[in-house]
Amino acid sequence: MSDLLRPGSHRADGVADDAALVQAMLRVEVAWLRALADGKAATEDQVEAVSRAAAGWTPALDPGDVEDAGNPVLPLVRALRARIDEADTADLVHAGLTSQDVLDTALVLLARDAVARVEADLRRAADRLADLADEHRGTVMAGRTLTQYAVPVTFGLKTAQWLTGVLDAADALAVVRRSLPVQCGGAAGTLARAADLTDRPTDVAEALAGHLGLAWPALPWHTRRTPMTRLADALVETCDALGVVATTVLTLTRPEIGEVREGAVAGRGASSTMPHKQNPVLSVLVRAAALQAPQLGAQVHVAAATAVDERPDGAWHAEWPSLRRLLELTVVTAAQAAELLAGLGVDTVAMARNADAAADLLLAERGGEGTLADYLGATDAFVDAALARVRGAGHDS
Amino acid sequence: MSDLLRPGSHRADGVADDAALVQAMLRVEVAWLRALADGKAATEDQVEAVSRAAAGWTPALDPGDVEDAGNPVLPLVRALRARIDEADTADLVHAGLTSQDVLDTALVLLARDAVARVEADLRRAADRLADLADEHRGTVMAGRTLTQYAVPVTFGLKTAQWLTGVLDAADALAVVRRSLPVQCGGAAGTLARAADLTDRPTDVAEALAGHLGLAWPALPWHTRRTPMTRLADALVETCDALGVVATTVLTLTRPEIGEVREGAVAGRGASSTMPHKQNPVLSVLVRAAALQAPQLGAQVHVAAATAVDERPDGAWHAEWPSLRRLLELTVVTAAQAAELLAGLGVDTVAMARNADAAADLLLAERGGEGTLADYLGATDAFVDAALARVRGAGHDS
Amino acid sequence: MSDLLRPGSHRADGVADDAALVQAMLRVEVAWLRALADGKAATEDQVEAVSRAAAGWTPALDPGDVEDAGNPVLPLVRALRARIDEADTADLVHAGLTSQDVLDTALVLLARDAVARVEADLRRAADRLADLADEHRGTVMAGRTLTQYAVPVTFGLKTAQWLTGVLDAADALAVVRRSLPVQCGGAAGTLARAADLTDRPTDVAEALAGHLGLAWPALPWHTRRTPMTRLADALVETCDALGVVATTVLTLTRPEIGEVREGAVAGRGASSTMPHKQNPVLSVLVRAAALQAPQLGAQVHVAAATAVDERPDGAWHAEWPSLRRLLELTVVTAAQAAELLAGLGVDTVAMARNADAAADLLLAERGGEGTLADYLGATDAFVDAALARVRGAGHDS
Amino acid sequence: MSDLLRPGSHRADGVADDAALVQAMLRVEVAWLRALADGKAATEDQVEAVSRAAAGWTPALDPGDVEDAGNPVLPLVRALRARIDEADTADLVHAGLTSQDVLDTALVLLARDAVARVEADLRRAADRLADLADEHRGTVMAGRTLTQYAVPVTFGLKTAQWLTGVLDAADALAVVRRSLPVQCGGAAGTLARAADLTDRPTDVAEALAGHLGLAWPALPWHTRRTPMTRLADALVETCDALGVVATTVLTLTRPEIGEVREGAVAGRGASSTMPHKQNPVLSVLVRAAALQAPQLGAQVHVAAATAVDERPDGAWHAEWPSLRRLLELTVVTAAQAAELLAGLGVDTVAMARNADAAADLLLAERGGEGTLADYLGATDAFVDAALARVRGAGHDS
Repeated sequence: MSDLLRPGSHRADGVADDAALVQAMLRVEVAWLRALADGKAATEDQVEAVSRAAAGWTPALDPGDVEDAGNPVLPLVRALRARIDEADTADLVHAGLTSQDVLDTALVLLARDAVARVEADLRRAADRLADLADEHRGTVMAGRTLTQYAVPVTFGLKTAQWLTGVLDAADALAVVRRSLPVQCGGAAGTLARAADLTDRPTDVAEALAGHLGLAWPALPWHTRRTPMTRLADALVETCDALGVVATTVLTLTRPEIGEVREGAVAGRGASSTMPHKQNPVLSVLVRAAALQAPQLGAQVHVAAATAVDERPDGAWHAEWPSLRRLLELTVVTAAQAAELLAGLGVDTVAMARNADAAADLLLAERGGEGTLADYLGATDAFVDAALARVRGAGHDS
Repeated sequence: MSDLLRPGSHRADGVADDAALVQAMLRVEVAWLRALADGKAATEDQVEAVSRAAAGWTPALDPGDVEDAGNPVLPLVRALRARIDEADTADLVHAGLTSQDVLDTALVLLARDAVARVEADLRRAADRLADLADEHRGTVMAGRTLTQYAVPVTFGLKTAQWLTGVLDAADALAVVRRSLPVQCGGAAGTLARAADLTDRPTDVAEALAGHLGLAWPALPWHTRRTPMTRLADALVETCDALGVVATTVLTLTRPEIGEVREGAVAGRGASSTMPHKQNPVLSVLVRAAALQAPQLGAQVHVAAATAVDERPDGAWHAEWPSLRRLLELTVVTAAQAAELLAGLGVDTVAMARNADAAADLLLAERGGEGTLADYLGATDAFVDAALARVRGAGHDS
Repeated sequence: MSDLLRPGSHRADGVADDAALVQAMLRVEVAWLRALADGKAATEDQVEAVSRAAAGWTPALDPGDVEDAGNPVLPLVRALRARIDEADTADLVHAGLTSQDVLDTALVLLARDAVARVEADLRRAADRLADLADEHRGTVMAGRTLTQYAVPVTFGLKTAQWLTGVLDAADALAVVRRSLPVQCGGAAGTLARAADLTDRPTDVAEALAGHLGLAWPALPWHTRRTPMTRLADALVETCDALGVVATTVLTLTRPEIGEVREGAVAGRGASSTMPHKQNPVLSVLVRAAALQAPQLGAQVHVAAATAVDERPDGAWHAEWPSLRRLLELTVVTAAQAAELLAGLGVDTVAMARNADAAADLLLAERGGEGTLADYLGATDAFVDAALARVRGAGHDS
Repeated sequence: MSDLLRPGSHRADGVADDAALVQAMLRVEVAWLRALADGKAATEDQVEAVSRAAAGWTPALDPGDVEDAGNPVLPLVRALRARIDEADTADLVHAGLTSQDVLDTALVLLARDAVARVEADLRRAADRLADLADEHRGTVMAGRTLTQYAVPVTFGLKTAQWLTGVLDAADALAVVRRSLPVQCGGAAGTLARAADLTDRPTDVAEALAGHLGLAWPALPWHTRRTPMTRLADALVETCDALGVVATTVLTLTRPEIGEVREGAVAGRGASSTMPHKQNPVLSVLVRAAALQAPQLGAQVHVAAATAVDERPDGAWHAEWPSLRRLLELTVVTAAQAAELLAGLGVDTVAMARNADAAADLLLAERGGEGTLADYLGATDAFVDAALARVRGAGHDS
């Protein structure tokens, strides 16, 4: 899904593209056979036959067939069945499931991996931010509110705040990832057909969850989309946190301020016309993502809010591209942000120069008394509090 | 804030209107004096004087002054100080705080009460839904997917699904409510001025949280808006869950389907022109809310994602009306939904008639064999699973 | 509707609040009597009686009644009829109309006046911008792209761009305002009841439009919401254009850049804690509005996109608060922006200082040759092109 | 860009995918050489050389290079220059332009073709709707408001309303398409470099517009994004209008109502589990699109509202994927809607049956007098008014 209008999109290659989706759907169908076997509704031979038919196979589905079915599951099931010689086994493929079971669960599988990747990049970002916060706990700089000088802060405090945002997002993602549920309800969320195949249909559904490493949600959620909206909310929260970092970097990297700069990478940030330009490309792209994510989240919520019947007539379909886009966007953005922070240059001289030049204003609240370094209040304690979340018990300064 | 274009808005009277906001801001200022006293930075007399000045007082702030300040805190602080004779005490009001500390914390206080009201209405809704799910666990009706007949379900299962959505939303709200944090950082999030007043500024900040019954977040969150976005997300999730209920009721209440109906209330649902009309007003209003909430959530996230510096230049201000609106909307909607469910009429005869007429289609998956009541799969188990969340260990049918 | 969380909201007092709405609805009901009289379905006496009953009367409707009806029209009609002694005349009030006719048309009337106010403020802004563009056509400053120095521009060009945005928005608003249509279709958009009262029902509907100075849209638009979405789009476009002005002012007003500043107004921009602060309040508030407007527009579009039947079951209701909010927001924002521009201070010395300091970079595209003033390309022609739209044929420099 | 999660996406193949984008960017670069030649800044040989180098060439750009540049233009320019032997000619490629000139203009070119395709499908839809409106002007059916029976309407009136919505959208798209502007301003919107190449830089810019068949906007619009937001607004308006059609079809196609049905197409609408199912796939997909479009429009507006400097630091980048997605979505949706309407089956017997069964309610406004066919008011006149827009002067029934 590399895409010229989404610079950096190659960082999400394989995360949620069509090939990954087909693989995930096949994984669900194979796991379903295993679950049926657990429930005595399929033989080990049948499991093997389906597993073999799916192994190493990524069919290209006909887009017309996908549109006619309204989703890719039916064409895939037909193609999978056609690869299985034994008719009873072919018929057992997908038996008891509905398209939504397979597609929802496949999206959940993609989401799990995507979220894990985001978490890894957030950990990288958090480690770097912890180092910056610690290193710069004494680096005084101007505090700015509503664009104007306020009181002094430190760059350590600023990065401690970013760190806290990143850790909060990582925590939210982990909670969502660990609770991602299987979807398994059959045609209308009753497991009626499955109950004809096995006398323990909920056990079989739970076994499906187990084979895929997903949670069993106790009930299907065909029209109750909380798993998807909570996923979306956590992804948007992640982009929010990184957007604050990028927006602040972009401000501080303005040449008149010049307190931070993106790491120099050969060939990055060049202009098509101006030879001297070193554009803060990663910050720009991260900020662009943060401007887009909230509306993607709103799309998922609108879909959730208008669900109806036992499968909604459009609201379900509206969810897919928004969720995929949000997954890919966040994977790319977290990777870019981690790289941005890894290379971030801090100009402590500029920070001191700007702060010193504004010392009168920065100390005005105090009536101009003392020095900037004297007027930092609880800054150090706040840095410690943030660091304690990554480093355990505390900081011995 | 009763409002002719928001029918039912009087249900949120006092929740988040200007008078409530002023009260909450005054509460913060008084609690701050107490916290300063805890930190030996104020005397008990001073606490008393400020407390007395604020008690039973709800000033009408001049809107021009509010605009000039960019927020209502500064005019309020001035007015409060003017009510205190002793100059040192007057000066101590708000000392060490910044406008954002007061306004953010006041909004959090309003949110806490509003969320508690929503939770109470969700509990009422959940109790009623549990009764419906239990009572109708055997009430067969047509399952519908993509508007067409699928396989049979029961009205008990449908209400068990609604119940699960309502309980999920209530859980999410409770988590948010219990973690709502105080905002306390001073001019730029360092507690610098407070540290001039007391040598234990973070203890004083934590004391402020304690006096208000809020969590102490370890760091200020002036530009890290997770507390507000998580609140917004949980409110939108609530509206989503209630939107599904309303949309389904509206569908099933269509005269050609006629399986449920809103409770008859004298004077409700009348038409301005058609004497026979009994409009499903509560469902319509709940659905309308569900269509609006996602974009309000997106507003809060856009604000969070574009925060910068130590206080953002517009993003903070963009958050207030969206949050207030979302609070009021959800309070009203939860109350309307609880009332809608309390009065919901279930026409089991119509459900049976529709299902029987469609029996061929509803059993087609099974090749037409058996009866509708035979083909319900795990429906009963799913109802039990949902009921277990409100009623504990299980169900004795 | 002055509101502490919407600083400046008093600027929209009377524009779209409940009293204005009630007045507008009464105006529709009275005009309908006149239209019926035009169609020989009412007598002049009846017109007079209804007109008299409505004159100078702004009832406070019971919020419970409004909720029961789902909108304020039915309670208002009942109250109006109760003020009319003659039973036939009382019955004729609202006869042939439906609630949606009255409420949609009343909102259109409010919108017309609100848009006219916005246009007036945009004209003020445009006049000021034209002066700035002309005055500063030779004021060289640094061009900045992706936050970094690019090539030189002039402050005249920058304001010419703002001017063009403001003029485009004003044009879009004028188009919308002039085409705002009456809503008149009766219970289900057929004028069936009206056709029982008069044999020329569409003439009567057109007469209603005429009495209110609105366009007659040829068909009712109960579920075809283009008039409302186009209004919303033009309002959002206005906020976009002003958002760019505010965001740029906020950037250039940063103390490290210091090229522009908001006009000093006694008491405006003060901080609750820092005595020296002069916050750019108007810019902050305008930018905050621009961050909110897009999602309000999306609310109106979601409502339009989900309309169904002859009157939608929630989508119509979802539209009202979004539209009102967008109207008030834009009225306030345009007024604030006009005032911001009227008082805007331009520091040409700072512009020159910053540009000169960066001359090497600003001329790098050209290989460093020449002077900043030499490298302005078509800047002057662009300024002329923008000015030509306000000043007619051209500029004699 | 065929995509398994966007069923029907193959209908937009080639409209706005990467290959089409690269072709459009190359078209801009070649046209620029022609424009330079018009301004005596390039020779005919140079135009020919660049034209030859670009002809029939669609390079695959390295995604890492695209990310490093922040957009695809710089890598493309480098690759194009490398294909030209003569150094001066190679240097002249892109000379005087900036990346934004090329990318904005290329997107405008894609938009023009995409919008033309949408308009063609809307014309097909309008023709069919006109036929339906005329054919069914006497087909009485139940009018429904807030889901309940209101007064009688005709299916001709319903389709006349849909027709009006489709025509309004087509008109809006045509206005936007005809005014789509070239972007041409150089590094910071001054044409400074171009002015070094030719003494008539605005003439050259206007020539570029002419060679591409685009409007010359008098000023560059690097940070004034009205062309993009107006495009987005017209696309969303189109999806709104089609969403109303789809939502109403979905309602009327419910088996209990059964008044319309999607055309039967072999293999379309099948279920993965239920053999009897005939799902209304096209309606579902069109409705799904209508639920997504508003938030895509909001993304474009958020980007527009936060533009700053001479090229915004993220807002510009946030616009691209939203616009592309909205273009593709609308192309697919219009095609699906046209096909849906072409095949739409109308069950006049069911309409009559439902209406007759509800006759008491449908005539209650009138006190139960007369027949349904008697109580249609101006229905016929409204149908005529809608038809007049496609068929000219009137209707000879």
